[in-house]
Amino acid sequence: MRVDTEYTAGACKTMTVETICVGSEILLGNIVNTNAAFLAAQYTALGFNTFYQTVVGDNAERIKDCVRLALSRSELVVLSGGLGPTQDDITKDAVAELLGRSLVRDETAVYRIHEFFEKRGRRMSENNLRQALVIEGGKVLDNDNGLAPGVLVHLSGEERDQVGNRDFADQLILLLPGPPEELERMWKEKAAPYLQKLSGRVIASSMVKACGRGESEVAELLDDLIRGTGDVTVAPYARTGEVHLRVTAAGTDEKDAKQRIRPVVKEIKSRLGDSVYTTHEETSLEQSVVELLKANELTITTAESCTGGMIASRLVNVSGVSDVFKAGYVTYSNKAKRKLLGVKRKTLEKFGAVSADVVRQMAEGAAFYAKSDVSVAVSGIAGPGGGTEDKPVGLVYIAVNICGMITVEEYHFSGDRMKVRNSTTAYALILLRRCILEYYSRLTFGEEERG
Amino acid sequence: MRVDTEYTAGACKTMTVETICVGSEILLGNIVNTNAAFLAAQYTALGFNTFYQTVVGDNAERIKDCVRLALSRSELVVLSGGLGPTQDDITKDAVAELLGRSLVRDETAVYRIHEFFEKRGRRMSENNLRQALVIEGGKVLDNDNGLAPGVLVHLSGEERDQVGNRDFADQLILLLPGPPEELERMWKEKAAPYLQKLSGRVIASSMVKACGRGESEVAELLDDLIRGTGDVTVAPYARTGEVHLRVTAAGTDEKDAKQRIRPVVKEIKSRLGDSVYTTHEETSLEQSVVELLKANELTITTAESCTGGMIASRLVNVSGVSDVFKAGYVTYSNKAKRKLLGVKRKTLEKFGAVSADVVRQMAEGAAFYAKSDVSVAVSGIAGPGGGTEDKPVGLVYIAVNICGMITVEEYHFSGDRMKVRNSTTAYALILLRRCILEYYSRLTFGEEERG
Repeated sequence: MRVDTEYTAGACKTMTVETICVGSEILLGNIVNTNAAFLAAQYTALGFNTFYQTVVGDNAERIKDCVRLALSRSELVVLSGGLGPTQDDITKDAVAELLGRSLVRDETAVYRIHEFFEKRGRRMSENNLRQALVIEGGKVLDNDNGLAPGVLVHLSGEERDQVGNRDFADQLILLLPGPPEELERMWKEKAAPYLQKLSGRVIASSMVKACGRGESEVAELLDDLIRGTGDVTVAPYARTGEVHLRVTAAGTDEKDAKQRIRPVVKEIKSRLGDSVYTTHEETSLEQSVVELLKANELTITTAESCTGGMIASRLVNVSGVSDVFKAGYVTYSNKAKRKLLGVKRKTLEKFGAVSADVVRQMAEGAAFYAKSDVSVAVSGIAGPGGGTEDKPVGLVYIAVNICGMITVEEYHFSGDRMKVRNSTTAYALILLRRCILEYYSRLTFGEEERG
Repeated sequence: MRVDTEYTAGACKTMTVETICVGSEILLGNIVNTNAAFLAAQYTALGFNTFYQTVVGDNAERIKDCVRLALSRSELVVLSGGLGPTQDDITKDAVAELLGRSLVRDETAVYRIHEFFEKRGRRMSENNLRQALVIEGGKVLDNDNGLAPGVLVHLSGEERDQVGNRDFADQLILLLPGPPEELERMWKEKAAPYLQKLSGRVIASSMVKACGRGESEVAELLDDLIRGTGDVTVAPYARTGEVHLRVTAAGTDEKDAKQRIRPVVKEIKSRLGDSVYTTHEETSLEQSVVELLKANELTITTAESCTGGMIASRLVNVSGVSDVFKAGYVTYSNKAKRKLLGVKRKTLEKFGAVSADVVRQMAEGAAFYAKSDVSVAVSGIAGPGGGTEDKPVGLVYIAVNICGMITVEEYHFSGDRMKVRNSTTAYALILLRRCILEYYSRLTFGEEERG
């Protein structure tokens, strides 16, 4: 299979950046701070350094303390949250006060807020216009997914003497909205391009996604690359059943940076072989499986016991899957396995529902009844109950049927019910991918050399 | 339906606590910081105050700076991560150095580490014994889910003069392991009970979970309670289709604290009515639905289009669901809707797959073919493609069939493909619950008064 490499690149300085997330709902444990993780990954992709993340509640004095501390050690301070319409939303006020600047209305934001309420026929309160306030002298970042604009402020020399750090050539504060869909879009479309334009070195980064190998195995195979030779960094990110590798390099221009990355990506692909399923940032494992099915004009059916629909659900994550996805069966009970998939009563009695023989029949029945070329079937003991000495919690069988050629594998997963089910789902997709690749490499041996 | 109230209670001081999560993998955006959210929710349940969360990398100087700052403003500093066997794991070293204490081997931990490697027949490296080190004079918290023990240190007067804050009667540092399953268990079983024993006021808390009402609607209905009358706090947590309310009160003893909570929980239940599905901390919406099915001896079948198995998967989250769960059909294509569920070709042609008529037939067919009492069917446009002016992205139909009595509802959800599918799944469970309750309240009118 040929895998194209996609690059994320742009001109940007190697900045030291730190994140301050504002919101009492994070301190109460109401929500998980996904914004901090999103921003952190974005910094890594741009080659920024980051040493701290802070969360603080909706309290002006504490927000100011945090910003002051961050400015003492970082070039760019990114705040998220607290730009909304309520009296609790005071991030802009606190930052403006710290800098001694005033807040002014942004007319584009005022217009968008009026338009929003008019369209919905709802009454706008005076509070809603608070969202249109921005810090004087700051660059306004329009919010295309919500009402509160973002602001990016370059600190003046005087401000840096008072609350910043003169060791840096420049210092910036960036205010982003709290809702993830607003923050992510504003970062990607407005903030990141601007920060990149601040010139300096050019950073390019590329993603290599591999499946079916453990994190430690990948770390061992790529040990020298991960430890780094200097100008190209390789950072592994573990996911269930997958390892994602971000390759980043700096260069004199985009072409130069990309040229430094290319041989490293090639080297990773050669060492990890077929387990690399994509080098595209946005491509998920399920998407690569669906593409593989489409490319080979195969239709698929799922037959699930312990995963209860999770494999089908991941395939349906892929928009436009209807071309290949025939049907999905959730057969949690023995009766359903018999009635819907034609599993034999005798086989269930002799080997039990969690057995190689039963998943094999499930895979056969699923493809037969739904008239599909391919099927995947799983049966396992997800726990907490149901385990025995012979068949402990975590024992899972997965069968893949490609045009009648059936592969059955036994797995032992650890963790709680949800973790076992997640692992089962991931490894079902991984086995599915491996079986399709093997089936076609047998049919068309030699052709793969082109890749 | 009768809902029992479960209490979490214990004796504990109202402490000011702050969290420092150590780990470069968080700063790289490799993982989402769920530990901080878990601990935050636990602090809230115990009535602790918390004003800051920090994330710092595996760097001794920076860790020490963060701990010093935290000790200047908090009574209890909880650190998570960096207790592992590698050279990067330096949290204990940094804290010991800051306090001027040494590290000593904990013999229980040494024994457990030896045992772990022996059982697996693996060779233990000297590095692994680093995990058995604890801070001298600290209380050791055994790790029942892993190898690195936790440590809880009371600062001496001298230490507090040097790096702490004498305004507090006492100051503590708690070190917890980074892996969530180790951290959570150690907190619940070892750390929280000890902190509670430090005496002072008694805190009790209780959880009320409601579904099918928006966050703003709940906030409005409970406005006076959420704003608070003083000694009982009500904190709302929004989830997809749900609002969870944590009710917390302090009292002279456990009985007193519980007595303060009881009338508030009762008041919330009376104002939110049937939308309250549980007052048990651990009960999920799918679990309450499964219990409702079991209580009424009903079996269920799912028929899913855009959710692709997510509803079945949530039901299968519930251990022991096999008593009630007959089967699940994932019928994403029109053909599958016809073949597996008997939806009429004419209906599909006339009204389209996303229509009230089609989900009705899906619900009828699912119950008929799987011979179940109840069925739930969904069909919708999850996007990003497939929307039209008449049928925009986010339009979803859900049908529930209780013994032949069919309810169909139309929904308009916002957000991306995943968000629309998540909302659809949640509202399918909510409609299912509502229809079962209504069905039985019709049959046994008057009986509900006992609740």
